[in-house]
Amino acid sequence: MTNRDATGIAPRDEPAFGRDDRVALSAAAAVELAVRVAGASGLGRSSRAERGSWLVAIADAVESHRDELVALAGEETHLSAARLGGEVTRTATQLRFFAGVIDEGSYLEATIDSPDASLLPPRPELRRMLRPLGVVGVFAASNFPFAFSVLGNDTASAFAAGCPVVVKAHPGHPRLSRRITEIAHEALAAAGGPAGALQLVEGMEAGLALVQHPRVTAVGFTGSTRGGRALFDLAAARPEPIPFYGELGSLNPVVVTPAAVSDAGPGAEAIAAGLAGSFTRDGGQYCTKPGLVFVPEGSGIEDALVAALGDAAPQRLLTDGIAAAFDRGSVELAERADVELVFAGARAADVAAPVVVSTSTEAFVAARETFLEECFGPLTLLVRYADDAGLAEALAALEGSLTASIHHAPGEDVTALAAVLEPVAGRLVFNGWPTGVAIAWGQHHGGGWPATTASVHTSVGASAIRRWLTPVAWQDAPAAVLPAELADGNPLGVPRREDGVLRHP
Amino acid sequence: MTNRDATGIAPRDEPAFGRDDRVALSAAAAVELAVRVAGASGLGRSSRAERGSWLVAIADAVESHRDELVALAGEETHLSAARLGGEVTRTATQLRFFAGVIDEGSYLEATIDSPDASLLPPRPELRRMLRPLGVVGVFAASNFPFAFSVLGNDTASAFAAGCPVVVKAHPGHPRLSRRITEIAHEALAAAGGPAGALQLVEGMEAGLALVQHPRVTAVGFTGSTRGGRALFDLAAARPEPIPFYGELGSLNPVVVTPAAVSDAGPGAEAIAAGLAGSFTRDGGQYCTKPGLVFVPEGSGIEDALVAALGDAAPQRLLTDGIAAAFDRGSVELAERADVELVFAGARAADVAAPVVVSTSTEAFVAARETFLEECFGPLTLLVRYADDAGLAEALAALEGSLTASIHHAPGEDVTALAAVLEPVAGRLVFNGWPTGVAIAWGQHHGGGWPATTASVHTSVGASAIRRWLTPVAWQDAPAAVLPAELADGNPLGVPRREDGVLRHP
Repeated sequence: MTNRDATGIAPRDEPAFGRDDRVALSAAAAVELAVRVAGASGLGRSSRAERGSWLVAIADAVESHRDELVALAGEETHLSAARLGGEVTRTATQLRFFAGVIDEGSYLEATIDSPDASLLPPRPELRRMLRPLGVVGVFAASNFPFAFSVLGNDTASAFAAGCPVVVKAHPGHPRLSRRITEIAHEALAAAGGPAGALQLVEGMEAGLALVQHPRVTAVGFTGSTRGGRALFDLAAARPEPIPFYGELGSLNPVVVTPAAVSDAGPGAEAIAAGLAGSFTRDGGQYCTKPGLVFVPEGSGIEDALVAALGDAAPQRLLTDGIAAAFDRGSVELAERADVELVFAGARAADVAAPVVVSTSTEAFVAARETFLEECFGPLTLLVRYADDAGLAEALAALEGSLTASIHHAPGEDVTALAAVLEPVAGRLVFNGWPTGVAIAWGQHHGGGWPATTASVHTSVGASAIRRWLTPVAWQDAPAAVLPAELADGNPLGVPRREDGVLRHP
Repeated sequence: MTNRDATGIAPRDEPAFGRDDRVALSAAAAVELAVRVAGASGLGRSSRAERGSWLVAIADAVESHRDELVALAGEETHLSAARLGGEVTRTATQLRFFAGVIDEGSYLEATIDSPDASLLPPRPELRRMLRPLGVVGVFAASNFPFAFSVLGNDTASAFAAGCPVVVKAHPGHPRLSRRITEIAHEALAAAGGPAGALQLVEGMEAGLALVQHPRVTAVGFTGSTRGGRALFDLAAARPEPIPFYGELGSLNPVVVTPAAVSDAGPGAEAIAAGLAGSFTRDGGQYCTKPGLVFVPEGSGIEDALVAALGDAAPQRLLTDGIAAAFDRGSVELAERADVELVFAGARAADVAAPVVVSTSTEAFVAARETFLEECFGPLTLLVRYADDAGLAEALAALEGSLTASIHHAPGEDVTALAAVLEPVAGRLVFNGWPTGVAIAWGQHHGGGWPATTASVHTSVGASAIRRWLTPVAWQDAPAAVLPAELADGNPLGVPRREDGVLRHP
């Protein structure tokens, strides 16, 4: 493995990768070089308009290489071309979305207070806004080779904030990671941007060095609970701890009310069809896969699900490791004495077929720790509840999750149920499925442990940018020192709070 | 020690404290009880208007007990009545300030996106806002027995957010802590508020149990680097880690430019007078004390400082431990071969006198780790610099700080200097002193390690409330489920972003 090219400082007239005569750098040296080059890129001193144009240039470049990238990603991830093509669009949309967020300018939280000597303590003139933290590390995910990888949400939001990014590539798609880095570098260079502000390193050792590098100021991570926890612990144990924004495992509980499967509701068949589509989508390899579904006893959902899954296509999983873990996890669950196997698709070499298992609320509560472990892949666990009390007891056993969904009848009062689930999940979905995370100002993709390591923040949506920013207050500063966004007269027209009143042009 | 009364559930007709026949609870049991009672207080379900009225009621009650509280605090902290009276006002102002922040409503980040099926991925209806995290722990500081203690900024901002608070009292003022808790409980009860939402526990063991309690969702802390780091490590090592917002040590570097001490600037005497007042104020026991001052060689500031300090009053420090540490630290510094003693006030039993030491930039850089250790109390270190290069080298050795100050001549270009200090400090002060932290929307009281454990947040100013909140997104939710702030038509008139556009009534 060589990372030298990925630093963005290799001579441009040489082919970027695959030369055997290159000197391979040690992981520590590769990280050192990457962090230094990123830190020297000057991205933090660029204007919002510049960064916006660079984000758009990268988005355009990614889309203009769509076919090549989809083919490469298909080879490495086994995801379908349709899915990957959609993900390329999503990734470009995300990059442009963050260009829009910084153009709008609210994210700066620009604030000006005029002096008032009559207060206690006296108030000097204060002008405050957010500034980029510095170089950040981003750990790419396996399951979104575009949208949560080298140029994914973490990178897009950090770059938009003005933070140079060192990406630790996911080993599941190394060639794609290198190629898309190269495309981004070319796009940045062509747009007059600092190519050095995006760096790629590879391998576990490099990842460990990245989290511990003194000049790295924050880390974003999307991946497993075990890996994320280990890196979180490293970040917290540093001599100077840094924020670690990890999105880890999530069960995404779904509650189906009795009314939902009655004549008044959408009915068992519709719900089963939706569930089948959601938990098997792209091999169930989503952090938002509904992995735990609370169904009324005798709801008919089990039979309807078996029918709906009859023709579910098997899917080769992202990596052999994921496939092995899925096999092991699903068999262990299905063989438990307190679990019934509802459906198991025909297994074949190399592909994973959907699995549905079920249990009772009593068994779920009794073996809580086992049932709360995420089984990544096309498996869902139905938990049959007899009554409200049984359901309440089971819901009280839940941990933090990215989402929680309620399927109910139109007009049914689900306020109490929603109030129970609100502290559990970052996003509450009603009569819908959690897979498919829209890119929007109002999106939240977060939740309590173990869904994330930092529940007050989000990794998707406009406020994902907040993770990479820290406030600065200027007290009685000469005008020349101030960022343009805090200048008198608001020449850049950003939304500002002036003497407590929110104003925007 | 008994904590029983501090839980707020002791019978009201009994005297609250000091009864020897009470059964003392173990620290763990006291914390368990406090967290349970706080969690059951229902504060998170109250409206913003209710919480605002309760904050104001507490503020009024504190001010109406001003004389009693100041007397009690004086006995326990040795701070002057004038200072303590000012701090009572400050504390009440902070409580009312956060009532204003939640009334204004921007802090909720209310956001609504309408559905758009044409997007990829399709966008459902999304409504997002922030909700309280749950029970939080607050560690009171020694040096602000009101403003950063039981009813200080952390408590005020958390309560405003809707988070019940369990305060770990500072052992430096236990009677004051109990009495002010009692006053707050009475005020809450009289205003129809949940007295259980404020709890007090005491002792180190209770503090450790508080940080580790499964139902505690976040912790605020103001105190020493050593203590803060130990608690941060505990919070990070929990099975489910929680945010730990610690404000620890800070040197608050000051740079005096050559022009500042020239005829064009304020001059050495004015700067020395300001510095003398700032670093000795209330015994130099401020997190914002200027402890490190870079002065041009031959600036005349040393002599002017000696003159200015001639009549500085000695001050009994907050606790015997702080006094002993100050004695030890100041003597160790003054006795170093690379340090000159500039001024040492007359020492006397029980009181600390100001100490000024000086060194060169070379020595500062060479013994960086020693010189970067905060010496809490009335001591400041002058670092003499010969030229810009020497200054730059010394500034590059700095760690994170709450503030950094520049003294300059009017019209002097200090943009380069400010750019160097901006990544170091949360607040940049120009021709002023860092002590005296105004309460304002535009305030920032934070900074990189070791100034804080969480540099993206602040402990003073409106956005201190953000630490206790986490987003929730409601997807296609029935109207009955939504908080009023997200209802159609915006009946509560909060600032909202609707389809990307910020609107406020």
